[in-house]
Amino acid sequence: MGSTATRSSGRRQRSATALAPVPPTRFDQRLKEILAHATDVFCQKGYEGASMRDLSRASGMSLAGLYYYFESKERLLFLIQKHTFSTIVRRLKARLEGVDDAEERVRIFILNHLEYFLANQQAMKVLSHEAEALKNGFASELAAIKREYYRICVGLLDDLKRERELQFSTRIAVLSLFGMMNWIYTWHNPRVDADAEAIAREMGDIFLQGVMTGGRGRGR
Amino acid sequence: MGSTATRSSGRRQRSATALAPVPPTRFDQRLKEILAHATDVFCQKGYEGASMRDLSRASGMSLAGLYYYFESKERLLFLIQKHTFSTIVRRLKARLEGVDDAEERVRIFILNHLEYFLANQQAMKVLSHEAEALKNGFASELAAIKREYYRICVGLLDDLKRERELQFSTRIAVLSLFGMMNWIYTWHNPRVDADAEAIAREMGDIFLQGVMTGGRGRGR
Repeated sequence: MGSTATRSSGRRQRSATALAPVPPTRFDQRLKEILAHATDVFCQKGYEGASMRDLSRASGMSLAGLYYYFESKERLLFLIQKHTFSTIVRRLKARLEGVDDAEERVRIFILNHLEYFLANQQAMKVLSHEAEALKNGFASELAAIKREYYRICVGLLDDLKRERELQFSTRIAVLSLFGMMNWIYTWHNPRVDADAEAIAREMGDIFLQGVMTGGRGRGR
Repeated sequence: MGSTATRSSGRRQRSATALAPVPPTRFDQRLKEILAHATDVFCQKGYEGASMRDLSRASGMSLAGLYYYFESKERLLFLIQKHTFSTIVRRLKARLEGVDDAEERVRIFILNHLEYFLANQQAMKVLSHEAEALKNGFASELAAIKREYYRICVGLLDDLKRERELQFSTRIAVLSLFGMMNWIYTWHNPRVDADAEAIAREMGDIFLQGVMTGGRGRGR
């Protein structure tokens, strides 16, 4: 690692002795590595089945260090989930900027989601499987980020409905779309399957034609 | 799963004392109960996190009895998965019989899948989460059943493509459809959401219009 640097920077932040700004990149990098190792472990053993000892072994950080910096297994899971959703939402917002066409905006949503998750399939599995593992404060903070992401998608589909005068259940449509996209962690094989862009186009076709066809007053 | 026959013959083989056939319903009922309890436990603790002791406690069967009849935690998981897929495939085949219209057959597939899984949401979660937990013989036997189910869906979509002269990637379409349907275990709330029939109609509309619209030579 660079464990010395990280550790000392982390400790300095905690003890409020750091007068000079600590270069962020090194700590960020180490944090990212630890979260990646923890993601591996949760992915393999499940959240319940994984111990702090497993996480320590995988990340190469001492058990004491892990408790010191992360406090608990739950906090590690929380950080993984928070990091994932925050990154996706940030990228999405940047990509949507300046794009007005409602259909195109839905396509951007799909591509952004698939691109991130195909590059981070293990994170996706952990997110899917351990969605209910967090409790209390962690759970509510994460729920807020997830809700924001969900609502962006609802907003995009409501815009599309308004613009094209469509009628469909936004809830079912949004959740169908998430299902189509998220299920990919169970089947995508980079050796035989197309990349995120091609799959986003294909799924975008199915989904958009699905909600946009016969949509005026379609049975709901 | 032919459980009745399997089981009573199993007991006969083991103890060789049961000369008269054991009434099937009683055993089936008890097996179903134990599998349901095991499903609960796997659902809550994950396969890795669950112990035979947990399974014994939940099912009210002694630990010794559990080992005697089921041999291992893995076999219990296998039986849950096998029971689920066998039931779905059996019901699907019965429902497809005598139906010729390709679109209607896809709708039947969707309804059959959603109906079963909304009635057995915990089984669905265990199937999704523990898809890779089985090894060797159990894994390959289950893979064969799942492959059959997957291929039925591929066949239905290929028929639709042929009949309507559509062009789309069957693989992406099938896996998108499974995603839409399977993801439901993460969000369906019987107090606010519609029942299987209404959701099957809505998802069927999105999916079928999606693959059937602009399908002649659509970009792939």
